[in-house]
Amino acid sequence: MSSAPLPRQSDDFPAWYGEVVRRAGLAESSAIRGAMIIKPYGYAIWEAIQRELDDRIKATGHENLYFPLLVPASVLAREGDLIEGFAPEVAVVTAAGGKELEEPLAVRPTSEALIWSTYARWVQSYRDLPLLYNQWANVVRWELRPRLFLRTTEFLWQEGHTAHETEAEALAETLTILHDVYADTIEQVLAIPVLRGRKSESERFPGAVDTYTLEALMRDGRALQAATAHYLGQGFARTFGVRYTGRDGRPEHPYATSWGATTRLVGGVVMTHGDDRGLRLPPRVAPHQVVIVPIARGDEDAEVHEAAAAVAGELRSAGVRVRVDDRPGHRPGFKFHECEVKGVPLRVELGRRDLAAGTVTVARRDRGEKEAIRLADVPARAAAMLDDIQASLLREARDEQRRRTLRDPGGYDAMVGYLRDAGGFAAAGWCGRRDCEARVKDDSSATIRCLPLDWEHPSAGACICCGRAAAGEAVWAQAY
Amino acid sequence: MSSAPLPRQSDDFPAWYGEVVRRAGLAESSAIRGAMIIKPYGYAIWEAIQRELDDRIKATGHENLYFPLLVPASVLAREGDLIEGFAPEVAVVTAAGGKELEEPLAVRPTSEALIWSTYARWVQSYRDLPLLYNQWANVVRWELRPRLFLRTTEFLWQEGHTAHETEAEALAETLTILHDVYADTIEQVLAIPVLRGRKSESERFPGAVDTYTLEALMRDGRALQAATAHYLGQGFARTFGVRYTGRDGRPEHPYATSWGATTRLVGGVVMTHGDDRGLRLPPRVAPHQVVIVPIARGDEDAEVHEAAAAVAGELRSAGVRVRVDDRPGHRPGFKFHECEVKGVPLRVELGRRDLAAGTVTVARRDRGEKEAIRLADVPARAAAMLDDIQASLLREARDEQRRRTLRDPGGYDAMVGYLRDAGGFAAAGWCGRRDCEARVKDDSSATIRCLPLDWEHPSAGACICCGRAAAGEAVWAQAY
Repeated sequence: MSSAPLPRQSDDFPAWYGEVVRRAGLAESSAIRGAMIIKPYGYAIWEAIQRELDDRIKATGHENLYFPLLVPASVLAREGDLIEGFAPEVAVVTAAGGKELEEPLAVRPTSEALIWSTYARWVQSYRDLPLLYNQWANVVRWELRPRLFLRTTEFLWQEGHTAHETEAEALAETLTILHDVYADTIEQVLAIPVLRGRKSESERFPGAVDTYTLEALMRDGRALQAATAHYLGQGFARTFGVRYTGRDGRPEHPYATSWGATTRLVGGVVMTHGDDRGLRLPPRVAPHQVVIVPIARGDEDAEVHEAAAAVAGELRSAGVRVRVDDRPGHRPGFKFHECEVKGVPLRVELGRRDLAAGTVTVARRDRGEKEAIRLADVPARAAAMLDDIQASLLREARDEQRRRTLRDPGGYDAMVGYLRDAGGFAAAGWCGRRDCEARVKDDSSATIRCLPLDWEHPSAGACICCGRAAAGEAVWAQAY
Repeated sequence: MSSAPLPRQSDDFPAWYGEVVRRAGLAESSAIRGAMIIKPYGYAIWEAIQRELDDRIKATGHENLYFPLLVPASVLAREGDLIEGFAPEVAVVTAAGGKELEEPLAVRPTSEALIWSTYARWVQSYRDLPLLYNQWANVVRWELRPRLFLRTTEFLWQEGHTAHETEAEALAETLTILHDVYADTIEQVLAIPVLRGRKSESERFPGAVDTYTLEALMRDGRALQAATAHYLGQGFARTFGVRYTGRDGRPEHPYATSWGATTRLVGGVVMTHGDDRGLRLPPRVAPHQVVIVPIARGDEDAEVHEAAAAVAGELRSAGVRVRVDDRPGHRPGFKFHECEVKGVPLRVELGRRDLAAGTVTVARRDRGEKEAIRLADVPARAAAMLDDIQASLLREARDEQRRRTLRDPGGYDAMVGYLRDAGGFAAAGWCGRRDCEARVKDDSSATIRCLPLDWEHPSAGACICCGRAAAGEAVWAQAY
């Protein structure tokens, strides 16, 4: 690992991001433009995210299943909005088994079409509803401006696809996913605070009646759409001929939702918490929550190595993910540096002098503080410090988000200036018309990230763009 | 669910298999020939298999990562044997993002080529070795004769790809995977007994020096290759220019292994344990180990429903995966039948009469036995019965494999007749020559499944085909 300093976030955030992702061993580019290789350290973070999401998806009554990767082009094309939205990004298989295919197959950019064409077989009666299904899968969307984790030609995600008897049930499902699955994971596990909101019409998922979103703010003042849940109404059911006999014996179309969270969340962790020295991982997603570095020359110091192994054993028994870095080829300073770049929450240094004093030195990555701790206290203290780091990173990110949110722009020009400089979120009244939305975008590159669900709305407001009565509050930002 | 009897295994095994997979809700065909939809019950079995394999893969020192789905055709083509082996099965993306691609991209049929072209960047020094990596992924191989789980155009698997300093280390890795990861999971979790062996040259993985295999025997006397681990020598390293500086300062090529296990294991569970009444799932992979059926009319019998919930709670606390089937729309008889078809290891029936007597009725799916058990004893007895079912299914399958293994064929014609009738495994001496192997195949459709690792070899033997001195013992069978 290079020991040259990282680019500074304030000098060149994209360069900092790319270099941190590379040096921490999260991911790298592959031979195919825009397709990334997720390296073991990055994949371990994704596995932790998967596990947390999957637990919540199951706890809210959903089951996993798996649909095929390849979708007949004709099936994908049946939903007009969907194909219009995705056509420019689709990869197409035209030959297989040594022959031209009679019908080209799309590599799934998303699975609504294939799944709803199948639900037509699965749903006959109201007794078959709801269908509460999710799949973990890869999807391909041809990206023109790829960036590791954030925009990649192939990405990993989960996509939920549910069918319900009533609109109310489908809407409730969308919000359950938004709050209890996504926001809970993203805030409590990834320590990324999110705004909950609805998308404006121009930012909706193709074919959706409403798209609900979680919007996070990165350290460069740009927003990251962290996860979305779509209320799809009856459109997909109509298009794919999904019909059931209702309680009153009449034919009905079920109501649909779909929702997804992707590997871009790993990028969100990097850009929310990282600093000029590297990653800072929230303990709940850190592959190693504690790394112990024995300070001993070669194999000489058996006592030190034994003590390190003993401390590791105790931490492991206490449920902590711990690694002993006893690689002989590297000096302690190199290992400390690596822990910093990789964002290991706690580093434990253990040398002969510490042993004699009956202590170890514990370094907190988030604050850069060091402390001597009595050997016997390590398991309990480490657990408490990990909890504190988890809470502290969330608090810090919340403060940062608050600090960077302009609640009272003081006029159109000031708001657009703030957004153009990627100052952060700007919240203001909006009349709901597309041309005002477009004007802000033209003037600042910022888009409406969401119409917030849980903010106090301005008592009475005017559209910041045109001065007409505001339909509500919108939050703008430049976005990834 | 249809209540018509299943086709009998002895009458039409393929029809039985297809119908069990359908009725138990494991999988179904999709709009694309050969690509299956894995339904929630089938996927839950796969998730259990994944978890068990993944635990063992990590316990043996490997880390997960993820490589892209699409492989430039030129990269795939660099390894001559590999492309020759897979060319007829590859699906090709020729357009993406609305344009013809300059270079076609193969949908990965396996990832050796892409991974070894990347290892060229990752391996510089002997200190970078070993690389012990695995990925969970989907692959596509165009199948002409698809069958649910067993041969599908797309399947899910894990593929391990390791690089080592020495041949001895790479060989040891191959055997660790074969024994400690695959055989341990397949025998102890799936209760499928396997023969461990090496493949003959004609059955090797394209590009492998040696392929190690686990061969299971299905209830129709046909073999299923359950998992394979390949020792790849230095071929891939040479082809893809992977070179490192050795301990003595000289340039070296690392030694490679690769290994995979797939969703076909779900089919193996069905065909090893299923009987004429449906699936019989080993408890360790059963999505529901116990299903409790309250016997009460509608919501009338609150007491029965409460008791069922209480028993379920106790079982859950004891670590048992339990489901209470309180669907109001179905009669107990229907639910019992469904439990049978779905292979639920233990069914607990609980009615008002049982409650009054302080007992429940417990039905074991494997033996079809029913027993009254005191309410207070249910958690402990159920746990013990689940252990017993797990052991018993393995024992039964072992006995069946032994019974169907012809150890002393009594001449070529007898062996070929036995194999042609899909009697099972036939073990006999083999000279090692391809034309003897081909002759058996022509005469019986059977192939050499493996050259067993752990059987006592015949003291002195002759090739069953040509009478020349045997190089060792081979095991033949017709295979999936």
